[in-house]
Order: sequence, then C-alpha cells, then structure tokens
Amino acid sequence: MVAGSDRDLAVRFACSGTTHADGEVLVPAAPLAETLRMLDSELVRLVVEGSRLAVRVEGARFALPLLDRELRREPPSPPQVSEVDGALLATALRTVAGTAAKDDPLPVFTGVRIQADHENLRLTASDRYRMAVARLPVRRAERPLDVLVPAGLLTEAARHAQGVLGLHGDGSRFGLSWAGGAVTTAVLDAGFLSADAIPSDAVDTEVEISADALAAAVRRVGVYSEDRRILTLEVGDAHVRLASSLQDTGEAEETLKANVCGGRTSPSFQAKYLLEALAPFSGGDVRLAIQPGMRACVLRSAEAKEVELTYYLMPMLPR
Amino acid sequence: MVAGSDRDLAVRFACSGTTHADGEVLVPAAPLAETLRMLDSELVRLVVEGSRLAVRVEGARFALPLLDRELRREPPSPPQVSEVDGALLATALRTVAGTAAKDDPLPVFTGVRIQADHENLRLTASDRYRMAVARLPVRRAERPLDVLVPAGLLTEAARHAQGVLGLHGDGSRFGLSWAGGAVTTAVLDAGFLSADAIPSDAVDTEVEISADALAAAVRRVGVYSEDRRILTLEVGDAHVRLASSLQDTGEAEETLKANVCGGRTSPSFQAKYLLEALAPFSGGDVRLAIQPGMRACVLRSAEAKEVELTYYLMPMLPR
Repeated sequence: MVAGSDRDLAVRFACSGTTHADGEVLVPAAPLAETLRMLDSELVRLVVEGSRLAVRVEGARFALPLLDRELRREPPSPPQVSEVDGALLATALRTVAGTAAKDDPLPVFTGVRIQADHENLRLTASDRYRMAVARLPVRRAERPLDVLVPAGLLTEAARHAQGVLGLHGDGSRFGLSWAGGAVTTAVLDAGFLSADAIPSDAVDTEVEISADALAAAVRRVGVYSEDRRILTLEVGDAHVRLASSLQDTGEAEETLKANVCGGRTSPSFQAKYLLEALAPFSGGDVRLAIQPGMRACVLRSAEAKEVELTYYLMPMLPR
Repeated sequence: MVAGSDRDLAVRFACSGTTHADGEVLVPAAPLAETLRMLDSELVRLVVEGSRLAVRVEGARFALPLLDRELRREPPSPPQVSEVDGALLATALRTVAGTAAKDDPLPVFTGVRIQADHENLRLTASDRYRMAVARLPVRRAERPLDVLVPAGLLTEAARHAQGVLGLHGDGSRFGLSWAGGAVTTAVLDAGFLSADAIPSDAVDTEVEISADALAAAVRRVGVYSEDRRILTLEVGDAHVRLASSLQDTGEAEETLKANVCGGRTSPSFQAKYLLEALAPFSGGDVRLAIQPGMRACVLRSAEAKEVELTYYLMPMLPR
C-alpha cells in the first residue's frame, strides 16, 4: 500500500509485491515517484538501510532519506454515501470538469459541484461563460451529497479509478474509493453554482443537427470572420446557414441540413465557445434549444444517453 | 501547380486535378491554405467568378479576392549542383537542424551550413554549446556548394521532399528540387561555422556504450543532482559510473558496462545537453572520444552508417 497526503488531499493505492519483512516508512514523494517512473526494470527491491530507503535494481541504487512518520497524519476518510459506475463518471467528467475554469481566483469556477440524491448524481461546472451539467445514475444511495470539488483532482482520480466507485462525503471532505485505492480531499465552499439560475423558459426555436458537421463548418467559415470571433447561426426552414466575410480574405458561406422546429431565432456565438460546446456531442446529433435575446442556448444530445448532458452557452451580440 | 513566394523564399508544388480551362490567378495564401486544410471533401472545385476565386464544395462556397499578378515576381531558381538521397538528407537533418538554435540574433546559429564537394554533402550546425556534423554521399556532383540555410526551412522542406533531391545553389540563393516540387531561399552569411575550429587532438579516453542505457541512467541519477544539472561520467576499467546526491532527496548511483580504451578521463556534462547528444545515437552503441580539461567530447556511432554523424559536446566543470 502506498499512501500520501498533504493538508487538503490524501491518496492511497494498493500494489502487489513480495515482502520479506513488514514495515512502514515515510520518504519524500517526488524523487521516489520519478525514480520509479524512469526505471526500465519491472521489479525493484526496496530495502531499509539505516536512515535510508534504498531502491535497488541491477547496477543501480537510489537511496531516499527516511522521514519522521509522525509528520504524516492522514485525516479519516468520510463515510460512503453511494456508489457510481467509474466509466460513466469518467465520461461525465470529461465535459463537466473541462468546462470549469483552469485558473480563477474564485474556487466556484474551478470546481465541480457534485450533488447526489437517491437516484442520480449531478455534476455541474461553469467558468461564467458557459455551464455544463451531467446527470448519471447512482447505486446504493444512503445519504445525499452536495459538495464542490476541485475539477483537476476529479479528472485525475477518474483516470486511475476503475469499476464501481464509492462516493464518500461529510460536511468538510469528499472522497472516491475503488478496489485498491482511494482519494480524499477537502471540499471547497459548496456553491450557488446551479443551472436553475439560468432562464430557459423562453425557447422558441429548436434545431437538431450533426454536431461534427456544424463544428467543421464553424471552423471553416470562422477563417473569414474578424479575429475569428463571432458567427451567426442563421436558422432556416430545414437548414442552418453560416456566412462571414472579411476584407482582404474574402467571403465564406455554408448551408447545413437541419431539423428545425418553432421559430427562426438566429443566435450569434463566439466561434471558439460554440466549438467547445459542440465537442461533447461529437459523433451524434445535437439539439439546440434557442431563446431570443441574450438568453442561453441549451445544447443536449438528440439521442438518449446514460450520461445526460446539458450544456448552456451564452450568445453574443451579432456583428 | 501551386506556387508562392515572399522576398526570401519561393515554393512550388505540383498537384493533380481536372482542368476545364487553363489559367493562373494570384490569391491570398493564408485563407486559401486554411480553408483547403479544413475541408472534409476530397475534391474541390476552383472557379474564377469575376474578381473572386471561388472554392466550392457541396453546400459551401469560399471566395478569395484575386490579387494583381504583377505583385508576385518569383526570382529564378539557382542552377543544380548535385543530387542527394532524400531519406538520407532527412535523417541527417533530424539531428543537425535540431542542433541549430531555434532563436538567436546571430543567423549563423540558426542555420545549417551545407557544403558539397564531388563526393560528400556535409551539414554543420551549432547553437554555440554543441555542434553536429553529418556527412552523406552525393550523386552527380557538378559544382561545389557552401551556403548557410535557415534550419527550420530545411527541416520543413525535407518533410515534403521525396526520392532523389536536386541541390541548387549560387552565391546568393539555395534550392532543393524534387519530382513535383521545389523550394528556393536566400542564403544567410556563409559561415565560419566549422568543426575544424574545435580542438580534438588530445583524446586520451574512449568509451563505447549503449546510447539508450546511458541516457536512461542520466535521467534517473539526474533526479538526485542539484537543479538536475551537472553529472560526471566516472570512467572505470570496463564500466561507467554515474553518482549524485542531494540533501532532502537522497543519493543515486548507477554502474553501466562499457568498453573503455586509453585513460580514465572522467568528464562532467550538463545532463540535459548530454541527453540531447545521445538521442541521435539511440538504438545503438555510441563512442565517446574524451579529452582532458575543458575540451569537447566527440560522439560518434560505434557502427558505420550511411549518414556519418559527429557530435561535439562541451564538458562542464564538475560540481
């Protein structure tokens, strides 16, 4: 078992080995991790030699100083509240954690709000300009959960976790556990981060279109827009048209087949943000629920999915 | 045929197409290139429509303004001086062009000196801290060549060129030509850039060792050196030893088998530069010719190769 922790974070992993003597030592994490990562041999020998932990392979010895084990005091893991399928959680986090800001002075924009009730897990993140919400089923729900967890940590944990994951939580800590590993972190201020705050009752136009075809057209026509910024989705009877022109560069227009319902409200978007909003729907059709004025456009998959994703994208004033 | 040029550089490529009317137009390069790159369809239609060149695929039209053809005056290509195998040139450039500085106020350190005589092509580059020299055979040599060419351009040209390449040159321009394409560039000030300026007559120690095994050991032991900087190659009777220690991190030592001839001169190197010097010899044994004091270490492949590479690496004062 390898375990490490700092003030906010604790991680433990099991790994198999042949032990000749039981024991526990504390060594500096970074040189141990780097040395092990760079060794070519499959097996290493770990030997406590005086005040050193020696990592030995043929022809080489790396010796790390033993630290005072009292220095490490791992806080207790919070109780399990429910279980979730690891693959579904990873799918949901790819979009939701990716929508959180990478760097923001306000933790609410770098975190993912995790809410669990007896049936569903809901993940919400926003960088103020767009918001992603994913809903997926939970198992064995015992208690509700509502915490804000750093997005980067969740992404990293989901990469290592496999199979069924335990969700753990109390008022001040959140954890994920799986066969052979666990990660526990302090939670951030739980949030007012909620899609309920985004008005979505004025939808008058619905467009269903291939996410990949629309993204490809946005990329191409965007070359002909000033600073590659704002493009208008011109909604027609059974198509969507993108057009742009730019002095010295020329003009571009593309017309794409689409299923259109309701009105012909034609929103404008930052090309970059529209592309990011379309990315999670790649490989299928996306349904855009469009509201007039400066109200959010709501993107959902046209097909039912086990991870139900809702993406809120703010329009821009047209150029 | 697609051709483009600016003040220093001219490029032309043939590409096959079905033409309904012959003609030649000049359009802005960047939007044309980007639009074509991002189109999904294999075929596009190019149509001159009034003052526009329209690029058409189903459902889309991109129109580029026609420019005054007088604006483009391509300088004549310099005469061919000899021929070289494209694959050998690409192999040589991988190391030599990579050794030139990416960015330096002095062009001599961002260029590759190309010297051809009746038998060989010699490529030389240096970023002041190390120098790489590659020698490869030429064919049909008619005239000698000695020019300094921007390293980045050579790398890019070698990526597109195939088969036998023509080498072109006169006092002020250098060119590469191949079936279906050519690139011509103004040459930089030809250089005093020469391995002859590096003293290499005091070699007293020769070491032959697996380049990959040495590189892997340098990476691992480097973790235990201050700022990952300087490592000493301790040359023994039939081995090389690397050792390092660092407070708080611990100690590392590795011993590698090696063929050693001559003395036991044990040079010290910047770990990063030693790794870069070993990289081109990956997959085989490298021979290090070591000189005492602050004289260059000369690296060559232990096996004969069609591209004969010599790499000069400056040692550091040991820590």
